Amino acid sequence: MSSTAGQVIKGKAAVAWEAGKPLVIEEVEVAPPQKMEVRLKILFTSLCHTDVYFWEAKDCGERWRGCDGTRPGRSCTSCILFTGECGDCAHCKSEESNMCSLLRINTDRGVMINDEKPRFSINGKPIYHFVGTSTFSEYTVIHAGCVAKINPLAPLDKVCVLSCGISTGLGATLNVAKPKKGSSVAIFGLGAVGLAAAEGARLAGASRVIGVDLNPSRFEEAKRFGVTEFVNPKDHNKPVQEVIVEMTDGGVDRSVECTGNVDAMISAFECVHDTPPMNFLNERTLKDTFFGNYKPRSDLPSVVEMYMNKELEVEKFITHEVPFAEINKAFELMLKGEGLRCIIRME
Amino acid sequence: MSSTAGQVIKGKAAVAWEAGKPLVIEEVEVAPPQKMEVRLKILFTSLCHTDVYFWEAKDCGERWRGCDGTRPGRSCTSCILFTGECGDCAHCKSEESNMCSLLRINTDRGVMINDEKPRFSINGKPIYHFVGTSTFSEYTVIHAGCVAKINPLAPLDKVCVLSCGISTGLGATLNVAKPKKGSSVAIFGLGAVGLAAAEGARLAGASRVIGVDLNPSRFEEAKRFGVTEFVNPKDHNKPVQEVIVEMTDGGVDRSVECTGNVDAMISAFECVHDTPPMNFLNERTLKDTFFGNYKPRSDLPSVVEMYMNKELEVEKFITHEVPFAEINKAFELMLKGEGLRCIIRME
Repeated sequence: MSSTAGQVIKGKAAVAWEAGKPLVIEEVEVAPPQKMEVRLKILFTSLCHTDVYFWEAKDCGERWRGCDGTRPGRSCTSCILFTGECGDCAHCKSEESNMCSLLRINTDRGVMINDEKPRFSINGKPIYHFVGTSTFSEYTVIHAGCVAKINPLAPLDKVCVLSCGISTGLGATLNVAKPKKGSSVAIFGLGAVGLAAAEGARLAGASRVIGVDLNPSRFEEAKRFGVTEFVNPKDHNKPVQEVIVEMTDGGVDRSVECTGNVDAMISAFECVHDTPPMNFLNERTLKDTFFGNYKPRSDLPSVVEMYMNKELEVEKFITHEVPFAEINKAFELMLKGEGLRCIIRME
Repeated sequence: MSSTAGQVIKGKAAVAWEAGKPLVIEEVEVAPPQKMEVRLKILFTSLCHTDVYFWEAKDCGERWRGCDGTRPGRSCTSCILFTGECGDCAHCKSEESNMCSLLRINTDRGVMINDEKPRFSINGKPIYHFVGTSTFSEYTVIHAGCVAKINPLAPLDKVCVLSCGISTGLGATLNVAKPKKGSSVAIFGLGAVGLAAAEGARLAGASRVIGVDLNPSRFEEAKRFGVTEFVNPKDHNKPVQEVIVEMTDGGVDRSVECTGNVDAMISAFECVHDTPPMNFLNERTLKDTFFGNYKPRSDLPSVVEMYMNKELEVEKFITHEVPFAEINKAFELMLKGEGLRCIIRME
C-alpha cells in the first residue's frame, strides 16, 4: 500500500484558465481515487491535434486536459487512454465495436463518473478534468477502464504517443482498410495520423502508397513512412480522384482519409477502383473508424509490442521534446503544424 | 459433336419490337457460336424486375432479353448469368470483386464481343441481344464466361431463379452484411430480393429480422422467409429509423437495403446501432453489393448446392408458372407486383 493511499496529494499541473490561452502551471490538490478509479503519476505525455481542438473550443471552460504515458504508484507500466473500455457493456462484449457505452470519449464531462465531481482542486476550488485523462499534471485520477497495462520494458518516452493519433492512423489501415500485400493505398492528409496510416500500409506490405496533401513540404518526410508517390491536388486542373484513377489504371485498392475534410472524403472514396455506372457505391465499402478500431485496454498493449518487436517505428513520429514547464511550446508547435509529436517530460 | 455444330438453327424467341410493348413470339435464326461462345437450348427461364426495367427503357430499342436456366447440347447442366466472369481480368483474379472487366453486366451492348454482331436474325435482319443472355428464346448464344455449370441433379425449373435477384438478396446478407448468430437484422423492401435477404438472415441464425415495407400485404408472406417483425413507415409519425432504434434498444446489428430508394438507404443506414455525436459515420460500415458479391461462374454452383442440401428454400420464391407462349403474363405479374417469381416453361 502506497503511503499516500486515501490522502489528498499535491503536485504541479498545467491549467487552462481560459479556452485557447496559454496553460498556467499551478500547484493543485489531487483527491484520492474512488471506486473503479486509479491515481497515477505521469512521467511523459504528449499532445494530439485533438487536444488543441478542445483547448481552443469556447465551450470547454476551466478544464484539464492530458493524456498518454504514466507509471503508477504500485508498479505497473501503463498508458492512459482518452477513450476507455469498461469490459461489461454491449460494445465491449462485441467484437465489432470499441465505443464503450460507459467510457467512450466524452469531451464534455469534466468530472468523474462515480460522484460527478472532479478530483482536482486549488485551495478547495474545483478544477475540471478533460476527456477523462488530465495528464498535463504530475498526478492524475482516471477511471480504471482508461488505463492499459503495457510491457514494463517499454520506454514510456516513446510509446506514450501510441495512446491517441498514431494508433488511430495505424489501426485505420491495419484493422479497417486491411490492404493486401502488394496492393495500392492512397492516404489523404500527411499529418501524424496520415503518416501512421502510411506506416500501417508499409507494415501490411502495400507496394504503392500514394500520399495526398496540399502542403508539398510534407512529401520528403512522408517517404520515411512508406509513402512511394505524392499528389498535390493544387498541381492539377482536375479532381485529385481522377488523377489517382489514371495513375493506378482504374483506382487504388484502398484509400484512407485522415483530414476530416468532406471534399477529401469524397475524393478518397472516389479514387478507389471500380466505377461501372449502374451502382450507387460501385461495390465499394465505406468504413468509419474511431481510434483505429482498437479496443483501448485490450489492444493497446499489442500496439506497444509491435514497437518492441521493431516492426512499428515510433521514433519517426517524435520530432520534439520539451520539459513540462514549457508545455505551451508543444501547443505552439501543433498550432503551426511544425513537426509531428512533441514529448512533454514531466520530471 | 452435335449435328447442328457450325450451322444456323431456327427456333422460337420472344422479341421486343418496341420498348415496353408486349413481346412477340417469332421464329428466329440463331447463328453458330464463335470463339469463347456457347449456343444453348433453354428449358426454363424467369424474370426479375431488372428485366422489366430494361424492357421498359426507351433507349433499348430492338433487343432481346432473357436469363436463367438452360441445358446445353453437349450435356452439361448450367445456369446462364446476366453478368459474367472471364477468369483473367484483375477483378476476376481479386477475391474482392465480381465486376469482371470483360463480362460485367452491360445493358447497352446488344451484340457479341467477338465480332460486335448479334447471333440472332429474322430473315437475315439482325435482332439484338440484351444483357448478354437472351433466354426468352428456345436457343441462345452467350459468352462462355456467362454460364455456370451446376449440379446435374438440380431441377432447372427451380434453380433457374438463382441466376439473378434471389442470389443478389441472399448474398447481400450472407456475403456482405454477414450477421452473426443471434443478431438483429433490418430488411428494407420485401420484394423477392428483400425476401431473399431475409432468407439469408434466417440461414445465418439471426434472432430478429425486422421487415420494412410500405405495403402491409407483404408482411404475412414474409414470415415464411424468417421475418419476425414488421414496420410500415406509414404507421409512424417519426422516421422509420427512429422506430427501429427504439425497438432494438439502440439499433440493429445489420441492415440490408433492397429497394434502391435513396430515402430508404438513409433510413437503413441510420437504423444500425451506434450514434455518438462526434463521428461522421459513427463507426458504421456502408457496403454496396452487386449480385450479392457472388462470383458468377465460380460461386453460383454453391448457391445451387445450398438448395440441394435443403438449406435454402427456393420453392417459396416461385409463385407462378406460364408456358413460353404466355410470356407476357410474366411481365404483367411483375408490373403489378403480384407474386414473387414466375417460371417460364420453354417446352
